Amino acid sequence: MERRHFLTSSIGLSVAAATATPGWAKAPTRRPNIVLLLCDDLGYGDLGANGAKLIRTPHLDALARSGVRFTNFFASANICSQSRAGLFTGRFAVRSGMANGVIQANDKTGLPPEEVTIAEMLKPDYATALIGKWHLGHVAPYWPPRVQGFDYFYGLPYSHNMVPLSLYSSGEGVDLITEDLDFHRLTAKFIDRGIQFIDDNRARPFFLTLALTAPHTPLDPNPDEHHHSPAGDYGDIVEEVDTGLGRVMAKLKALGLERDTLVLVTSDNGPWFEGSSGDSRDRKGGAGWDGGYRVPFIASQPGRIPAGQVSDALAMNIDFLPTLATWTGAALPDRELDGRDISRVITDRIPSPHDDLLLFDDTQVTGIRTKRWKLVKYSYYRGYKLDLGKYMISRQGALLFDLDQDPAELYSVASRHPEVFAALMKRMTDAQAKYDALAPKA
Amino acid sequence: MERRHFLTSSIGLSVAAATATPGWAKAPTRRPNIVLLLCDDLGYGDLGANGAKLIRTPHLDALARSGVRFTNFFASANICSQSRAGLFTGRFAVRSGMANGVIQANDKTGLPPEEVTIAEMLKPDYATALIGKWHLGHVAPYWPPRVQGFDYFYGLPYSHNMVPLSLYSSGEGVDLITEDLDFHRLTAKFIDRGIQFIDDNRARPFFLTLALTAPHTPLDPNPDEHHHSPAGDYGDIVEEVDTGLGRVMAKLKALGLERDTLVLVTSDNGPWFEGSSGDSRDRKGGAGWDGGYRVPFIASQPGRIPAGQVSDALAMNIDFLPTLATWTGAALPDRELDGRDISRVITDRIPSPHDDLLLFDDTQVTGIRTKRWKLVKYSYYRGYKLDLGKYMISRQGALLFDLDQDPAELYSVASRHPEVFAALMKRMTDAQAKYDALAPKA
Repeated sequence: MERRHFLTSSIGLSVAAATATPGWAKAPTRRPNIVLLLCDDLGYGDLGANGAKLIRTPHLDALARSGVRFTNFFASANICSQSRAGLFTGRFAVRSGMANGVIQANDKTGLPPEEVTIAEMLKPDYATALIGKWHLGHVAPYWPPRVQGFDYFYGLPYSHNMVPLSLYSSGEGVDLITEDLDFHRLTAKFIDRGIQFIDDNRARPFFLTLALTAPHTPLDPNPDEHHHSPAGDYGDIVEEVDTGLGRVMAKLKALGLERDTLVLVTSDNGPWFEGSSGDSRDRKGGAGWDGGYRVPFIASQPGRIPAGQVSDALAMNIDFLPTLATWTGAALPDRELDGRDISRVITDRIPSPHDDLLLFDDTQVTGIRTKRWKLVKYSYYRGYKLDLGKYMISRQGALLFDLDQDPAELYSVASRHPEVFAALMKRMTDAQAKYDALAPKA
Repeated sequence: MERRHFLTSSIGLSVAAATATPGWAKAPTRRPNIVLLLCDDLGYGDLGANGAKLIRTPHLDALARSGVRFTNFFASANICSQSRAGLFTGRFAVRSGMANGVIQANDKTGLPPEEVTIAEMLKPDYATALIGKWHLGHVAPYWPPRVQGFDYFYGLPYSHNMVPLSLYSSGEGVDLITEDLDFHRLTAKFIDRGIQFIDDNRARPFFLTLALTAPHTPLDPNPDEHHHSPAGDYGDIVEEVDTGLGRVMAKLKALGLERDTLVLVTSDNGPWFEGSSGDSRDRKGGAGWDGGYRVPFIASQPGRIPAGQVSDALAMNIDFLPTLATWTGAALPDRELDGRDISRVITDRIPSPHDDLLLFDDTQVTGIRTKRWKLVKYSYYRGYKLDLGKYMISRQGALLFDLDQDPAELYSVASRHPEVFAALMKRMTDAQAKYDALAPKA
């Protein structure tokens, strides 16, 4: 539990982190494999482990029991391309010019090749694959994902509700090819390919990102599976994800790689038109409210991560890159990162290195969050976006929530805690100025 | 409990209603007074009786215990002017040309004088007053509210976050005057004036609408009251509403009018940027989701309404006019109404006369609801409004929710219940065609 006052600096913690014996000192002799299951629009509340009543996720729940489940883990953006840019680079999307909506089928933009992704960081020691949805650029020089360090790619260039759409495959010496799409079996296909990749690379360290398109719309349950969830097609799709994870875990076990493999599960943003944000407010794309950003996060590596933990430490998907650098011994890219190493938050329950998290809506810092406090400055309302400090919506200039007593962000206590309000408003303003200056010029 | 299949016709019920002895046969000899406390943007979940934890509402809760509290009561629109047009006329706002956003400070429109309001229906037997917010037109021929049957008006022409804004008073032979606004004491002022009106008219039947501006933004708690709710200024304002209701009830008691007065409490729509929708999804203005429409509803008249009831019957604020016609013996206006008489739902727990309720977003039927089922066709998302049947969001053309198991409208079961889906979609389409034809031509 993180109990510091929100204004406390983290300097003391860094010292502690540097001197204490790390819990993963008994790390396996080989470099750990990494399987990242990145879901698309999966809601925090759609997992049994996170309180879902209408969806059964036994494998996700078992994975959570085998390691750590986070309750305050956030995507670095409330929509897809931006969140993925943050996840893979450890830097907010605004730095790479990716903080402008999501990439559309007719766009010519993408994640700049000079950005360093987790896959690039892990090369050449690791075999790397991205199987599923890329959505970080589908024209040269951003395409295929091999330009960003993935040896192998099999999947879709962008969201599967966009047209025209084709399924692509690229490997060493293999040209891009297209295949007919069969939405009903997309998840199963990706899992199949992922398992094949694990099998092909079982003798060496690998980094596999299974960037499933599920449960993003359109929802087309697999006719070969028979879940019939009371949560409808969405529930069936989430249960297919769960089944797929079960198959991956069975493969790792069959190959004897369980203790050598770090398995991570998360989502790119909150749920869209279906799915549950848990007790958070709003959902994907909804400006500064938690529901657009708070996502499931599970991490498991038996022998390295103690089983049965639940952590409420603040963390974000931009933490993946520095954390995996520590986890694998890889050298960090030589550039400023926004993410922090949370490896010992995961293994040793040390407090989060984050005093706060910034919530971006495109290039705008729309919310800022500490463990207890939340400042929200903008919200969508009907057909437009509102500055909550204007039109007499907030006398104070924004809304401040005490998440300890009001996790759903219903009642602003800005007038009750002016010092907290002022401090967070300053952080938000300073952050906006910093990132405005860092953003690529149009 | 209403347990009919959603497709059952209500013919049998009408017969039963016509032949059974009404529970209010022991009605008082004088025509009952009516006090309607109409709050502005008060959320369903902001009342202690409806589950609020951070706001204390002892008088509202006591009122609910003294009569009936509804759990499935809806505003007839998700924003203010439209909801009020429906409430006062018993007809959806689309009929009167009022279904186009809300009235702005520079608008020249209003509720057509030929519409018949509850106040007009009750004249000349009743003394009538509207104290608080009108928001149904503030230029001739829509202004002042006396053109719609209110003898006395004291309050604001539109929402108190709009500018320029003045406080107006109008009475018999009294010209409109303006006063300086003191937001901190608006609620107290309205309550004072309401109590004065009750006192002035204690010897005759009266219809008082206390159309409070609370808890709509801006939120300016009264410095003379000291609530300091953990729900911040919003909580304080709701507690001021509660205190005000307590003062009104004390006045009725002091005058010996308790059993002669029907007290109704509701809100014009769901909560805006603060406030709780309870377990409903979304909030004010949010297209077809319940949270924009579901509001508190309490009705109390000791001796006429049994105490301690909780009703989950479907009802809507358009039901007020026909219900009050029955309650007072007034003649219904000679025109087609959308509302239904729910007087015996209130007194005798008969099933709701509504098989379904239409949820309008401006002139568009955006949702339709039965007791168990909910069809949602449109939703706002970021800066635009989406047809959920397009862009591959729903394979079926809209989202269908089973509210019995999924009250928060998270998981569409359209593919599980195609007959229910088709029937509701037909009702929605038919309703859209009907109201398109009825709407005034621009």
